[in-house]
Order: sequence, then C-alpha cells, then structure tokens
Amino acid sequence: MTIPESHCASTGLLQNNRMNLDALYSELTLKTKAKLALVVLDGLGDLATKEQLYLTPLEAAATPNLDKLCKDSAQGRMIPAAPGITPGSGPGHLGLFGYDPLEFQVGRGVIEALGLGMELRHGDVAARAKFCTLDKKGIVIDRRAGRIPTETCEKLCALLAAKIKKLGDTVVIIKAGKEHRFVVVFRGSGLEGPLTDADPNREGFAIPTVHPRDVNNAGQKKMAALIADFYKAALPILANERPANGFLMRGIAHQPHIPLFEERYKLKAAALAVYPMYKGLAQLVGMKKIEGPATIAEQFERYLREHDHFDFFFIHYKYTDKAGEDGNFSAKKKAIEDFDAALPILLKKKPDVLAITGDHSTPVAIKGHSWHPQPVLLHSAFSGSDKLERFTETGANLGSLGVFEAKYLLRLMQANARMFDKFGA
Amino acid sequence: MTIPESHCASTGLLQNNRMNLDALYSELTLKTKAKLALVVLDGLGDLATKEQLYLTPLEAAATPNLDKLCKDSAQGRMIPAAPGITPGSGPGHLGLFGYDPLEFQVGRGVIEALGLGMELRHGDVAARAKFCTLDKKGIVIDRRAGRIPTETCEKLCALLAAKIKKLGDTVVIIKAGKEHRFVVVFRGSGLEGPLTDADPNREGFAIPTVHPRDVNNAGQKKMAALIADFYKAALPILANERPANGFLMRGIAHQPHIPLFEERYKLKAAALAVYPMYKGLAQLVGMKKIEGPATIAEQFERYLREHDHFDFFFIHYKYTDKAGEDGNFSAKKKAIEDFDAALPILLKKKPDVLAITGDHSTPVAIKGHSWHPQPVLLHSAFSGSDKLERFTETGANLGSLGVFEAKYLLRLMQANARMFDKFGA
Repeated sequence: MTIPESHCASTGLLQNNRMNLDALYSELTLKTKAKLALVVLDGLGDLATKEQLYLTPLEAAATPNLDKLCKDSAQGRMIPAAPGITPGSGPGHLGLFGYDPLEFQVGRGVIEALGLGMELRHGDVAARAKFCTLDKKGIVIDRRAGRIPTETCEKLCALLAAKIKKLGDTVVIIKAGKEHRFVVVFRGSGLEGPLTDADPNREGFAIPTVHPRDVNNAGQKKMAALIADFYKAALPILANERPANGFLMRGIAHQPHIPLFEERYKLKAAALAVYPMYKGLAQLVGMKKIEGPATIAEQFERYLREHDHFDFFFIHYKYTDKAGEDGNFSAKKKAIEDFDAALPILLKKKPDVLAITGDHSTPVAIKGHSWHPQPVLLHSAFSGSDKLERFTETGANLGSLGVFEAKYLLRLMQANARMFDKFGA
Repeated sequence: MTIPESHCASTGLLQNNRMNLDALYSELTLKTKAKLALVVLDGLGDLATKEQLYLTPLEAAATPNLDKLCKDSAQGRMIPAAPGITPGSGPGHLGLFGYDPLEFQVGRGVIEALGLGMELRHGDVAARAKFCTLDKKGIVIDRRAGRIPTETCEKLCALLAAKIKKLGDTVVIIKAGKEHRFVVVFRGSGLEGPLTDADPNREGFAIPTVHPRDVNNAGQKKMAALIADFYKAALPILANERPANGFLMRGIAHQPHIPLFEERYKLKAAALAVYPMYKGLAQLVGMKKIEGPATIAEQFERYLREHDHFDFFFIHYKYTDKAGEDGNFSAKKKAIEDFDAALPILLKKKPDVLAITGDHSTPVAIKGHSWHPQPVLLHSAFSGSDKLERFTETGANLGSLGVFEAKYLLRLMQANARMFDKFGA
C-alpha cells in the first residue's frame, strides 16, 4: 500500500508515480460466473535428495489423476513470502489468498487462537501463553514448566478461567492448548496490539513488563495495562502450583485489518478445511467456513453440493505437511496418492479455474517448513499447456508460470476466470 | 530508494504497512556455526552463438569437478542489478554481497580508488580524473590528452602530489592509473559528495565548475570549493606540459554508508581476492582482506587455513572476465578449466553452503560486461537437487532457483545455512 499522494504532499515529497497494483486489479475486476477452486496440499513442496534416489514424494507418488490434468495445465513454482524466508501457516495462507504476507501480518496469539478453534471477533486481542516455573524471587527457572501434560494445562486453565472472567469491562477467555501452551483472548473496547512480549526469552530473568510497540497508541497502552492486571490476578491463583506457578505471554496482538476477500476479489468464498487453524485463517479474510467433512473425499463431495452457492472454494488438505514434519517420505507419498485418488470427485464439476499447490514446502529432509518454492498447477480453459506429463517440482521448474511470489496466484486465477478487463487501450 | 521513515514520520504515516524486507531478514537471523563460501568467477556468464557452435565457454569447458557438485545442487540465473542493466564491478559485487545495487551506490571515484589499491577511510571523498588537453582559452580540445603513456601519467601525478599535499586542513592524495587516468582522494573533516562533474563531456567547451548535487548540503558545498581550489593549484603546475596541460574530474563522491556485512548477516567475512578492486569492494562492506594468495589454487589453500577463523568467504577469480573482455573464447574456456582443476582444494573442507557464480556476464561476443543473467550454482545439504548433470547457462535456465535478482543470493545462502527462524506461526 503506498501513501496517497496527498498525505506526503505537505512535505514536498512524492513517493513515486507508480500506480498501486492492488488498486489496479480492483479497478479492472469484472464479476463473472466462473467457479474457482484453490486446493492446498499443505507443505507439498519437497527436495530431491540422494537418500530418496533423487525423487521427491510428488515424483515418487502414483498420481494418475493429476497426470491427466497436467497435459492441459500451466505449472510454476511459488515463493511463499520472500526469497529464503520460511513461512508459518499464517503467512503461507495469506499469500495464497492474495494478500502480501509482509504487509498483512497476523500475530502469533491470533494464529494460536485460530488453531485452537476459538472464534475471534473484530477488535479482540489474543496472546499465546506458556506455563513456566518461577523461583521465590519471580525468576523464570524453566520456560516450559517441565512440559506439563496437556491434562494439567487444561486443569490450570479451567482454574484461571473460573476466577478471571473479566478485568474491568474486558472479557477474558482462556483456552488450553497442548502441553504447557494456552491462549488468552481479551474482548473489550478500544483494545489494540501489538505489545512487547512478557517473556525474558531465556531463563534466569524475571518476566518483563509488556509495553506498547507504538508508545503513542492509546489502545496499546490500555492493552498493556490489562496484561499487567491479568498477571496481578492470575499469578496468586497459581502461586502454590508446581511446576507451573507462572506463565509467559507472547505475540499479543489484535486481528489485522484485512480487506475482505469478497470485496477485494468479487468472489464469494467458502472454506473446506478440517483443521481449526485453516478454517480460522479463511475466516480471517471473510471466507465462509463449511463444517462437516473430515476427509478429502468428503471435502470434495461437499464441494459438489456447494458448487452453486459460492464462486471460490478453498480446500485444505493437511496430511502432506504432517508427513513432511515427521520426516516420513512414504507417508508423504501415500498422502499425495490418497489425495489423487479422491480428485475425480472434485472433477465431476470441474471448476473453471483450478489451482493445486502447497502453502510452502515441508521437505522430508528438513522435517519442517522451508523456504523452497512450492510447485503449482494452474488449470483452466485459458491456462494453456506446458506440455508436461506430470505435476512435480522438477517439471514445475520448466513451466510457463516461472518462479513467482505466491501472492500473485490469486490474480492469475482471476485472470484465467476472465475477471480482468484490459488495462489501457 | 524508498523514502526514509524519518521523512514521513512528521505526517504520522509510515510509507506503507509492508514490512521492510531487510529488517525482516535481520529479525529472523540466527547465529549458526555454518561456513559459507561465495565463489565469484568474474564475468562468468556468456552467450551461445553460432560462431561458437552454440556452446558457451562454460558449456565447452571440461569441468569434471563442477559436474560432480551439480547432482546435489540447485541452479538458477541472476539479474545483477535490473533487467537490461549492465553493471560495473561495483554494483555487480554489491548485489552479490546482498546489497541492492540501486539503493547502495558507490561513486566511480571510490571504485577507481579501490581499483588502484588505495585505502579509503570513512569520510574520504574520491574523484576519478583524466588528463586532457586545453587550448589557450581553456577550451578542452582532447578529452584524453592523446592517451598519454602510463609513465607520463605517473610522472605528472608525482609532480602534482609533490606540490599539492594539503588544501587548507584537507589532505590531498593523488595516484596515477593507466594511460591518462588518475584518482584524487580528499581526506578532511566535514567533506561530502556527490558533486556535479568537472567535465564538459565533449570537446570544444571549458571545464565546468562543480556544484553540490544537493544545494543545501554543507559538506558538498565545502567539497565544491575544495575542487575549485584544487584546480587553482594544479592547473598552473601543468601549464607548460604537452599534451596533458589540464584534467577533468568525475564521480566526486564519498564512500556510501553501507551497513556492515557482519552486523547485517551475523557472518564474520573474509575476502580472498587477488585484484585490488575486489579487495576494496569487500572492504567497503567490512570484510577482512586476506593478503597473499596470487592464484586460485593458493586462494583455496588459504581458505583451508582460514576455515575456522571466519563464517563467510568471498573468493574472487578474475580471469574469466579478462578473457571475455578480450573476446577470447578459448582463453575463457581455459580459465574455467583452470578454476575447475583447483576446485578440489576448496572441497577438502567443503563449506556448508557453497555458491558459485559470476558478478555479471562478460560475453565473448560482446567483449565487455553485459546485462545477461549469470548462472549460479547453490550447493548445501538443503539445496535439493535440480537433477542437472552440468553447471551451464542453458542448464541453469531449468533450475529451481529461477531467474532472480542477485541481491537475494546471500539470503538464499543464509537460508541454506539454516540461519533464518520461521516467519510467523
């Protein structure tokens, strides 16, 4: 987003004369009847390594249905956020949804809350929290409280939730996560983030007081005072617990102001995701969450039923990422094959524009997210054919889409849906 | 160049909400024990032409050691500065060092001074100068003074240096270059560039007076006055010389404020270069210059000895560029083969991340630097394999790195060294 000319005119400076690209896209956008589907195999991208005989899971998998699509598709590779940057699921998906992940940043508290299935409202501030162990002087001596079992975390969160329902006029919502992790949501008026962390980041130090990131922001100042009040109320409740007699708070922020998907793209969008995190990310941009389906086959079946009710479908498949995180090559290959086996269901009502990709790579060799560009397949009556026999990382290197930033995929989908008027005469 | 934050701060507006990418990289950077090596074959990139049976020197060369590396490497091509722009060595190397060459510009005077092996200090202003011939009225009648021999240039510079050691409190350092070229460095307090050139750019005009580029800059004003004083002192000394009775000055500027390499990347860096220009460019960003080695084999041997003392090694090889400048295909091919023969020395202590590339292309068919993207090979345990058998321009077109701006190579090297934390949750 550039500064409107008028804002800088008083300083005698023009930022530059370049047209704002999002504004241009908006200006050119036409409403059509096209159906678009973005199918995300989480963490799809991988590396060819000697250990796996130089095949990626996507290359090793039998994918007859993807193969059939390839002949009439374009391919390429996408940089999720910026060269060399490994994205979390938040930035990874915001990019896929067409939002620059460096411009629209979602706090970790918000992401954690979404991941736990909490429904966030506009203006809510969320923080991720972790139980820790404090010594008598309040010094953090174990930042994870010995990784207490999830049941203990749930018990302690219930205890806190029972005693702290409100702070002043602000509602406090506490929800346990896995092991020592939990989330706190503050629902009140005039609250804003981000704040600095209540976490010394190492042991041997006291929990620092939080501060506004912008000292002139009244909402942040109010929020910082609330966090202090929350500590004042919560620490005595935990005082006699062992080992979890304290807690750290990080990523304290409100939901970012994100232009709504439907307004931005003139597309009414539905999300078919199984895991709360991805439902939450879709809701963050205003997609309609469709509950029910638990498998990819069920998600595709549901797509068929909802086909006429929406213009855009985001369909999320988690198991490729899970297998990658586990470093399990054959499980990742199998997850891709399971996906491929279900694909014909979706194709019964083939979307006018179909993109199949990942939100990032999760290479088996890395056992985690990575920065490597993920492959993307784009299929429509106007995608053209890259004359590739299969959809793979190595093949995608040769595709007509090249290597590009993921935030442009949605614009390419719109173009393939003939949603853009000509620019200039 | 974006508007510095401070310029817009008074309006209470940040330029946009997009995070500054360098700030993001810095925030995510972790210190690791990885060793990184950037090996630059100057002017490596070339063109396949009919005259050379459609083989580039890199394709024609026998490179068994590079070939072996390829199998487990990623490849791509890099745009040195911007599409279609032919860079000099300065912008070419700044890009390789991870600095946007359009943001961090080094004056030609500074580059020439570095090229002559002059040690510049912070605050020094350097100008490149050329002897010329003036008529009785002071009109430039030969901008190159008949390309006087280097010995004459050295004699005249010695004459000037003997008579002009200081101007006021400013030390003046004069050093001869090749033929009619020389460099003048001004070392004093409060001096700044850039200034306009003391060069009419064509014959038939007098030498113009220099002016500050920014009329409100006191350092530039002081510097412009000094240049006038320098002419006043120097011209009478040359008055009876023929044909070099005058001189032109260009690129009058101080060293740019460049964030230091070690601070920017958390990498302690050493430069193993033979030619002064590349040592100078490395020093400009704060790398430690290692003197001694005169051949690529000696440079690699020295790398082995210095391996434990630094995190990052910049190793520069000049002869590919020289051969390209000469339009000598077989010399360029030979230079590549000599390099390849020495490569096993480096690989005795294989860096965790190894990048082999050029700073630009110097095609034999062009006999000079060019804008064509140079090929790059990136090798690490996490580079993946692009399944290419050789490192060539044509092969690099098929690689997973795509075509990208050279300034991102260093970030990709950091990513491969696992130096970046995840962005977002």
